[in-house]
Amino acid sequence: MALISYEEASPEVRAVYDDIMETRQVDRVNNFWLGLAVDPPTLRRTWESVKEVMAPGALDPLVKELLYVAVSVTNGCEYCIASHTASARKKGMTDEQLAELLAVVGMANETNALATGYGVPVDEAFRRD
Amino acid sequence: MALISYEEASPEVRAVYDDIMETRQVDRVNNFWLGLAVDPPTLRRTWESVKEVMAPGALDPLVKELLYVAVSVTNGCEYCIASHTASARKKGMTDEQLAELLAVVGMANETNALATGYGVPVDEAFRRD
Amino acid sequence: MALISYEEASPEVRAVYDDIMETRQVDRVNNFWLGLAVDPPTLRRTWESVKEVMAPGALDPLVKELLYVAVSVTNGCEYCIASHTASARKKGMTDEQLAELLAVVGMANETNALATGYGVPVDEAFRRD
Amino acid sequence: MALISYEEASPEVRAVYDDIMETRQVDRVNNFWLGLAVDPPTLRRTWESVKEVMAPGALDPLVKELLYVAVSVTNGCEYCIASHTASARKKGMTDEQLAELLAVVGMANETNALATGYGVPVDEAFRRD
Amino acid sequence: MALISYEEASPEVRAVYDDIMETRQVDRVNNFWLGLAVDPPTLRRTWESVKEVMAPGALDPLVKELLYVAVSVTNGCEYCIASHTASARKKGMTDEQLAELLAVVGMANETNALATGYGVPVDEAFRRD
Amino acid sequence: MALISYEEASPEVRAVYDDIMETRQVDRVNNFWLGLAVDPPTLRRTWESVKEVMAPGALDPLVKELLYVAVSVTNGCEYCIASHTASARKKGMTDEQLAELLAVVGMANETNALATGYGVPVDEAFRRD
Repeated sequence: MALISYEEASPEVRAVYDDIMETRQVDRVNNFWLGLAVDPPTLRRTWESVKEVMAPGALDPLVKELLYVAVSVTNGCEYCIASHTASARKKGMTDEQLAELLAVVGMANETNALATGYGVPVDEAFRRD
Repeated sequence: MALISYEEASPEVRAVYDDIMETRQVDRVNNFWLGLAVDPPTLRRTWESVKEVMAPGALDPLVKELLYVAVSVTNGCEYCIASHTASARKKGMTDEQLAELLAVVGMANETNALATGYGVPVDEAFRRD
Repeated sequence: MALISYEEASPEVRAVYDDIMETRQVDRVNNFWLGLAVDPPTLRRTWESVKEVMAPGALDPLVKELLYVAVSVTNGCEYCIASHTASARKKGMTDEQLAELLAVVGMANETNALATGYGVPVDEAFRRD
Repeated sequence: MALISYEEASPEVRAVYDDIMETRQVDRVNNFWLGLAVDPPTLRRTWESVKEVMAPGALDPLVKELLYVAVSVTNGCEYCIASHTASARKKGMTDEQLAELLAVVGMANETNALATGYGVPVDEAFRRD
Repeated sequence: MALISYEEASPEVRAVYDDIMETRQVDRVNNFWLGLAVDPPTLRRTWESVKEVMAPGALDPLVKELLYVAVSVTNGCEYCIASHTASARKKGMTDEQLAELLAVVGMANETNALATGYGVPVDEAFRRD
Repeated sequence: MALISYEEASPEVRAVYDDIMETRQVDRVNNFWLGLAVDPPTLRRTWESVKEVMAPGALDPLVKELLYVAVSVTNGCEYCIASHTASARKKGMTDEQLAELLAVVGMANETNALATGYGVPVDEAFRRD
């Protein structure tokens, strides 16, 4: 696949790269964005969405990164596991936290299969929520 | 499917039900466990694992519930979404936190597909982590 | 969705229904096939494939049904879990066997997530296989 | 990722490694466990569960390995496919059996998609099961 | 879950509903958007993204709806199958086209599993693409 | 894994290889079929099905390849993404079309997760379809 470097990027793409580096306080743009840059509208739209969704809010940014890793492991996306694990570490995730996260993700995948396989009906108490 | 009520449960199954209610400080056992009770060894083993994994540790119990919901949404497990959303609410999850969680899970599923579809190679910087 | 009953079916579709009932020694055709009948070429092709793949061979038919249930649980296909669990019971599956199957499927989904999350490299010994 | 060798392992981890080698009658521990060893409680808990679930019971151990491979293929877990295919071969799986297993897994994934896509309602006869 | 009707919606949410109805030339907003409205920023962001992505471009809008149905079937999302099948019909999809789409989706899920299960290496000729 | 070359193939397998090359007007058989050839009945059956399903019909062959890519991305099947992207290019897919396809697949995976996570009920208007 093509990765569009900063040097070869159009002004439109460079503006996104600049915003990524400034928002994240980093001096390089990771491959995901260099790859999306072959399609500038998708690059821009995806970055705007990720920036909005991952900003501090009711959940803190580290928790959001942990959620991202959990989904990426469940989907088996190697790139996404690597990049969001790195982001989570930058935001303070410890080895112990990563280990617990993976233990929870493992159990959730197991009990999802058990609930589905046994066809467990949703409790009335949960429906009222 | 069969759900084994407390009344009809064997002493072995009741011991698990009792531990669930005591550990969680609740007065009823939700359907997932009533369903697993048709296979007492799986009931006991799964409960022991869930109890250990979901206990407070390097991650707090609410964060663990949020991770559980994120995996369950990604797998499309209706029962698991309902039960772990209810558990997360009991541990203090607000509507705003749930909304942000779902926004992150949505974005993660989108960018997982984009990274996979574009075949983005993992950055050397992430491999060194 | 439309379900095409035997009475309203074309001769081409009826021929498939007749073969399903004769091959399986049953006197009704289950909804999956009644649904596919809106597209007779897919009905015929799918039935021919299922008949060939599920026939006795190096694996016995009950083991093949168990594998079908395991995949269906992993994919969360409610219809497929129901229909292949029923088929497996007709071929002799006991409650104990179903419980063990679901326990294995649960564990496999858990350890799949752990192997993926930890990024475990394949052992050289396995590659030589 | 880190793989914890026997030599560098703590006594707690070595005890699990020893039990794996003795239970399976092998003289090395495969990478999955060496990877989990960074989190000793998850290593111990996962091994205890796998040992219990994969032991002979109502289903024979080879059938359990076949089910494990079927789930792993469906989830696209390369490590798990490699390791459980190797385990299945050790327990006697022939090339013909593997080929039939993959044919069933392929068909199950196809018909899962067809049942879901057509929205086929579960037959009353299956619900009564 | 809560569905926010037009009457009870805030001006910010109504503005999105109005744009959905005008863009699609319809006089009601479907439940997906009424559900997302509990989180107005996600409602607005998701709608802006869907509007941009589904607009006519290098692929025509009907083909985009067909792709949406294919992904939704593969993920087993009942709501999404129903809503995008309805959208595709409005854009001219015939019964024959839907049947062929589902046949392709079924085969793709089968051969994905076979390629994964056999561990087929990517052809050099494809890598050069 | 084993790949069965034309030279070492049995007459039964060669007949399939010949039909693949003639049908597709190519002078080599890609690895997927060379891999399936260890199991000639699966090779033959799968090829016959793919040939039938991917033939021109109510949907044109390029649209069918695009659907194949969409499913393969959603399942994370690297081989299938590579081979069907190459097939789509041969049938005329442009870079712009591929970029739009991936944008749709990304959005569909996101909104599938949102619809599932919010538990959106299917609109009555869609059920009547």
